[in-house]
Amino acid sequence: MSLSHINDSNQPGMVDVSAKNITPRAATAEALVHVNEAVAAQFDGTDLVSKKGPVFQTAILAGIMGAKQTSNLIPLCHPLPLDSVKIDITFTDHTATIRCTARTTGKTGVEMEALTGASIAALTLHDMCKALDPAITITQVRLVEKTGGKSDFGGKAETLKS
Amino acid sequence: MSLSHINDSNQPGMVDVSAKNITPRAATAEALVHVNEAVAAQFDGTDLVSKKGPVFQTAILAGIMGAKQTSNLIPLCHPLPLDSVKIDITFTDHTATIRCTARTTGKTGVEMEALTGASIAALTLHDMCKALDPAITITQVRLVEKTGGKSDFGGKAETLKS
Amino acid sequence: MSLSHINDSNQPGMVDVSAKNITPRAATAEALVHVNEAVAAQFDGTDLVSKKGPVFQTAILAGIMGAKQTSNLIPLCHPLPLDSVKIDITFTDHTATIRCTARTTGKTGVEMEALTGASIAALTLHDMCKALDPAITITQVRLVEKTGGKSDFGGKAETLKS
Amino acid sequence: MSLSHINDSNQPGMVDVSAKNITPRAATAEALVHVNEAVAAQFDGTDLVSKKGPVFQTAILAGIMGAKQTSNLIPLCHPLPLDSVKIDITFTDHTATIRCTARTTGKTGVEMEALTGASIAALTLHDMCKALDPAITITQVRLVEKTGGKSDFGGKAETLKS
Amino acid sequence: MSLSHINDSNQPGMVDVSAKNITPRAATAEALVHVNEAVAAQFDGTDLVSKKGPVFQTAILAGIMGAKQTSNLIPLCHPLPLDSVKIDITFTDHTATIRCTARTTGKTGVEMEALTGASIAALTLHDMCKALDPAITITQVRLVEKTGGKSDFGGKAETLKS
Amino acid sequence: MSLSHINDSNQPGMVDVSAKNITPRAATAEALVHVNEAVAAQFDGTDLVSKKGPVFQTAILAGIMGAKQTSNLIPLCHPLPLDSVKIDITFTDHTATIRCTARTTGKTGVEMEALTGASIAALTLHDMCKALDPAITITQVRLVEKTGGKSDFGGKAETLKS
Repeated sequence: MSLSHINDSNQPGMVDVSAKNITPRAATAEALVHVNEAVAAQFDGTDLVSKKGPVFQTAILAGIMGAKQTSNLIPLCHPLPLDSVKIDITFTDHTATIRCTARTTGKTGVEMEALTGASIAALTLHDMCKALDPAITITQVRLVEKTGGKSDFGGKAETLKS
Repeated sequence: MSLSHINDSNQPGMVDVSAKNITPRAATAEALVHVNEAVAAQFDGTDLVSKKGPVFQTAILAGIMGAKQTSNLIPLCHPLPLDSVKIDITFTDHTATIRCTARTTGKTGVEMEALTGASIAALTLHDMCKALDPAITITQVRLVEKTGGKSDFGGKAETLKS
Repeated sequence: MSLSHINDSNQPGMVDVSAKNITPRAATAEALVHVNEAVAAQFDGTDLVSKKGPVFQTAILAGIMGAKQTSNLIPLCHPLPLDSVKIDITFTDHTATIRCTARTTGKTGVEMEALTGASIAALTLHDMCKALDPAITITQVRLVEKTGGKSDFGGKAETLKS
Repeated sequence: MSLSHINDSNQPGMVDVSAKNITPRAATAEALVHVNEAVAAQFDGTDLVSKKGPVFQTAILAGIMGAKQTSNLIPLCHPLPLDSVKIDITFTDHTATIRCTARTTGKTGVEMEALTGASIAALTLHDMCKALDPAITITQVRLVEKTGGKSDFGGKAETLKS
Repeated sequence: MSLSHINDSNQPGMVDVSAKNITPRAATAEALVHVNEAVAAQFDGTDLVSKKGPVFQTAILAGIMGAKQTSNLIPLCHPLPLDSVKIDITFTDHTATIRCTARTTGKTGVEMEALTGASIAALTLHDMCKALDPAITITQVRLVEKTGGKSDFGGKAETLKS
Repeated sequence: MSLSHINDSNQPGMVDVSAKNITPRAATAEALVHVNEAVAAQFDGTDLVSKKGPVFQTAILAGIMGAKQTSNLIPLCHPLPLDSVKIDITFTDHTATIRCTARTTGKTGVEMEALTGASIAALTLHDMCKALDPAITITQVRLVEKTGGKSDFGGKAETLKS
């Protein structure tokens, strides 16, 4: 019978952050959700009205709760305490723009928490409106800004990928 | 198509605790569970005996595990490490009194952890005894005492609401 | 060294529902939440307004999601698919009345799902308003009605325990 | 003190599927992930190699596990048994195309399971490669096809939104 | 830039059980836990007494709850309703024998539920007694019997591996 | 009606770690998995090939994610941030040796995280290969080494229990 030590470099592993400093960190992510006219017509100036309830409020809550599940969903993410998760939504011209900002005081960044929060909010918006538009599309899920780690990112004129 | 920035003041959001100090914090919550004579007759001097097993022991374990789920259950709670969760139960005169104390060393209080622990313990007691009394009622779920934050609460002659 | 088979009758165990029929089942549970004047003054005719967002809407969503966690929280509950969870809240005279109805098509009842949904909604209301009233009290958490199992319960003149 | 019954039509609620038929249902969703040249250069013909391990394999597993969490993440989704979740990834020209197909035999569709699986796989890909490209962008997260419910969707020449 | 369709045969995937019949299924798994004399001396004839509480009772509850988490822990397991999970523990000669039986009425077997239940119970026993014996060893975690699927297993003279 | 305060010493309770120091802590645990010739023949020099996908890679990811669930699975474990979880697998002579090392900077040790990670990896290996060998057996699940707490453990010539 053969013997093999499975080589770590080919195997999944968490980054060891034992030696990193605890610093305040923040990250902001964005997701856009495109809806059709039938959905857009439900906009009452504040929220989208749906048979399942208020869409943006539900999406915001789901996104906040989803951000707290990040380390359970993304296999190599570190579990960390969160100081804050904020989500807001702007709606214009058939597009909801979801922004999620996560903050921690810890050894590693919260990019994935911000991205997960924005994504779960976008998926929830999809779920609440899919009866009117099954072709709803989520685009431009990306990190907008990150501060507090070794290297900052974004925050000014970052170019969108199309 | 209209445009609207959803106003934060109307939308759910976590309180940002980034700037708060890390201090030792504790909270104690209570729940009462009223049972009928058929259930009370199962009390052996230490625990309620049921077909599903020992009631108070099961309720205590469920409450401790439930307290650890608080930030997954209460949408705007912060996830935080817990130094301790203790639950004890006193039984007298058809009423189980459940007390849950949670402790952390963190930036925000553990009232919801104590209340969630007491509530899940009470619900578990209900589950284990409902075959004998489907009308079991949980009352007086409330915060008894809280220390370590900006303002303390309770600890002496707080009045019960009826 | 001594030997002992731990007696099942003293140990926790799930009820075996293998042989039970699959039937449509429903249960309704209730919880009352008493708040002080400072909280009640925030009622805008539809919801309680708080710094953390809309209280009843957040509580309803938390309760629905909490009901889906029942078998993870209550140790001896069976995991089962849910056809529906509905929560509504009536507010009058410093008291929010939370009603949660759960439905399944399965082998066992959904009393605990209804009770857990009502309880998590009540705890969420507490969390959102505790800055104004740390003495908020949850009472009368109880099963109101249950149908579809071997024996029905409630639905008419069931007496409140005080 | 005023009284108000919170109007169900403004409140979040699950759709009641009690009366729906149990049928085999399937849904396929897609997500595209755009990466920069530094990431693309790590493609070995089968997978992207990263310091954290094999990217596509990890993303596929995370997506499968994420699809199973759908009803815990999307507030008004029904928990349901899943017969299968499959994810595959095609990589060409700086773009990973993730396809997730979910199947159930149940009363309601699995669109959200497919969309959640694709999204969590995409987020995991982001997490594993963000050290090389923090600007990774996820786009075109959408339902591709759905069968088995009242109305089918897609499956042929559905137009992409840009 | 190269193109490659990631070959399914090398990628993780759930088995598709859409076409399988729903049948009653059961599985029993076992785990042995070896403890030192210091732990064994705490046996009171029914349970091991520890500073953290009753060991076997806690282990049984944890195992039942752990069995319900199987599809969240084992990546390619199907989520399924469970009709019953039972765990019992026999203690003799420094060895606790944990047996876990899971039952479902479904399209796929519950071997992993039984094995996960036995394992989590064994780990909990370890946790409760490790202050007295950090060298506690869990062995012989294995499937003992399985019925209700295409092929049955065990149930008579299955040989132990050493 | 009788009265009794349930004695804490007989009831489950978490150890209170409020007063303990925050120190870097590590623990390593091991599990062996014995497979038959049919499974061993699938070894390609790096991983076991199975119809469900690459066995060791899947087991490693499941173990890492399982380690992060420890405080949700083991009732009296404290939730704590993890700096790192690493798992590697060596395969020789029909036996996979799984080693899991967990690290934290916290008030209490990570023995249970290491043991849970190794156990979930072993169970996943079982799940992926059980079609070829339903008699797969997991043995020697034990703590190998622990550092950073009041007392260290292992790390040299610790004897295996058979």
